[in-house]
Amino acid sequence: MPEHAILREVGLRDGIQMAARFLPTERKREWALRLKEAGLREIELTSFVPAKVVPQFADADALAAALPELSGVTASALVPNLKGAERALAAGFTHVNYVLSISEAHSRSNVRRSTDEAIAEFERIVALKRTQDGRGLVLGVGLATSFGCTLQGHVDPDRVFEVAAKVAEGGADELIVADTVGYGNPAQVKTLLPTILAIAGERRVVCHFHDTRGLGLANVAAALDAGVRAFDSSLAGLGGCPFAPGATGNINTEDAAFMLDSMGFATGIDIPALLALRRDVEGWLGDERYSGAIARAGLPKTYATAPRTAAAPALAS
Amino acid sequence: MPEHAILREVGLRDGIQMAARFLPTERKREWALRLKEAGLREIELTSFVPAKVVPQFADADALAAALPELSGVTASALVPNLKGAERALAAGFTHVNYVLSISEAHSRSNVRRSTDEAIAEFERIVALKRTQDGRGLVLGVGLATSFGCTLQGHVDPDRVFEVAAKVAEGGADELIVADTVGYGNPAQVKTLLPTILAIAGERRVVCHFHDTRGLGLANVAAALDAGVRAFDSSLAGLGGCPFAPGATGNINTEDAAFMLDSMGFATGIDIPALLALRRDVEGWLGDERYSGAIARAGLPKTYATAPRTAAAPALAS
Repeated sequence: MPEHAILREVGLRDGIQMAARFLPTERKREWALRLKEAGLREIELTSFVPAKVVPQFADADALAAALPELSGVTASALVPNLKGAERALAAGFTHVNYVLSISEAHSRSNVRRSTDEAIAEFERIVALKRTQDGRGLVLGVGLATSFGCTLQGHVDPDRVFEVAAKVAEGGADELIVADTVGYGNPAQVKTLLPTILAIAGERRVVCHFHDTRGLGLANVAAALDAGVRAFDSSLAGLGGCPFAPGATGNINTEDAAFMLDSMGFATGIDIPALLALRRDVEGWLGDERYSGAIARAGLPKTYATAPRTAAAPALAS
Repeated sequence: MPEHAILREVGLRDGIQMAARFLPTERKREWALRLKEAGLREIELTSFVPAKVVPQFADADALAAALPELSGVTASALVPNLKGAERALAAGFTHVNYVLSISEAHSRSNVRRSTDEAIAEFERIVALKRTQDGRGLVLGVGLATSFGCTLQGHVDPDRVFEVAAKVAEGGADELIVADTVGYGNPAQVKTLLPTILAIAGERRVVCHFHDTRGLGLANVAAALDAGVRAFDSSLAGLGGCPFAPGATGNINTEDAAFMLDSMGFATGIDIPALLALRRDVEGWLGDERYSGAIARAGLPKTYATAPRTAAAPALAS
């Protein structure tokens, strides 16, 4: 039996948060449903950041109406604070991801809070979660800038571990280790992740890599070696960071799925279906930065094209 | 002391062999000299393929006049056959790289020979080499399509090992394991390379990866794990393959140097100097496919910019 690896699609959140064009709710819904059809089983669907900060997410509540159609998919929402968590919960989300920055400079620029203040906000979300046990709210916590920061430069791994331990012990159900600005490298991944995995214990660890400097998939391979089996990725490699000019976005979903498949991991993902969706998304969004080697070069002749359900077979190599 | 890793620049050979524009000899010479200034210590300078097959290399003999200026650099030439090896030797090259395809289909398309016929030609080059012992001809042998083939699909690893053993025992000084069409993945690299390294024994193993499907640097990281310390790469990721439409070229030198540096390997390479060269090369070549994340996003703030020439590796092989 092949081992499973999970790609959590974040194109509808990280991918479009800086897009020039507002994507109508109906398009976002179609995007999510077609991800489901393509075999994706985890989608970060939207963000409950205030619409005046990111207008793209003005329809977060409306988009939540698609949740029943996404049964079988873990659809989560990013929440920047307690208020966002309350809104997500009210809208029907049972999975929320709260992000805090390890870098003080990034934390202050991004959410105008120190990292410790952001941890205090996390504790308020945990308190909310504890009032919701019957509904089973699952709380992921993103550790942004874990590999370095465009503003502050070096980020101390000990600080990453300290914050990871605080949120793991404090009530996080999942740790999302994020290379927000694409500073990480495979050696650093292999240094950081084993300790993070040990800190996380039974909690899942997700890696969130940006491909800003071309090392995104190399970092995925290194994280696989370290034992990580879940990754955030974005259709067409959409995304960017206001503090990383010239950056590409997240690692590309199609390319990451191809790599995982090729390496013998079962992803359940139908890459040709993703490529078809990608073409439509390009039409919807217009002029954005799209990346992706598979979209350009195609799948290899050796790639098995059998339908890939959740129990997709590993490739014979 | 940091461990050394070597990038052998193949932009002047693999990179421009399909370029639309003929690059004047003087530009090629400048390119090579500026690679030397940027700390590169191995350059594949040209190819002794007949000019009627690849017009770009019509000036291979003329370019050899730059060899004395490249002292301190191992400048090699690709040779497609015995005739090419004789020409390279006559022109003053002491390092030649002969490439044969593991895939029968690729071998026949590329050089109109079966793989066994290509091995026979290798043996004739070894015989030539043995008449040249005083001049110390170094013979690298490329094993093309070791990870798969766009024409034939799957390539049997046992055939790769068989040919590798034949050429290692038969007189090759170096094995260049090539993913000619970008079919390889990190798991495959980790499966194939340990056996290749064992077969190679004291001979150096170089990995030659194309980034066609985005896995180039992930494959480098996997090969580093396996113990490989030398890689072919191309400035601006130039290059392509007539049998891989939409392909990008070799792994990108600037990005590979950044990854190696970031991982703690000494490369001796001055990345900003490479980026300046790249800008000029883009002007010289015009409309080609240029890739590269560092060229787009820049080096991270955390990247040390101290002069790196002191770390230039001494050559073995």
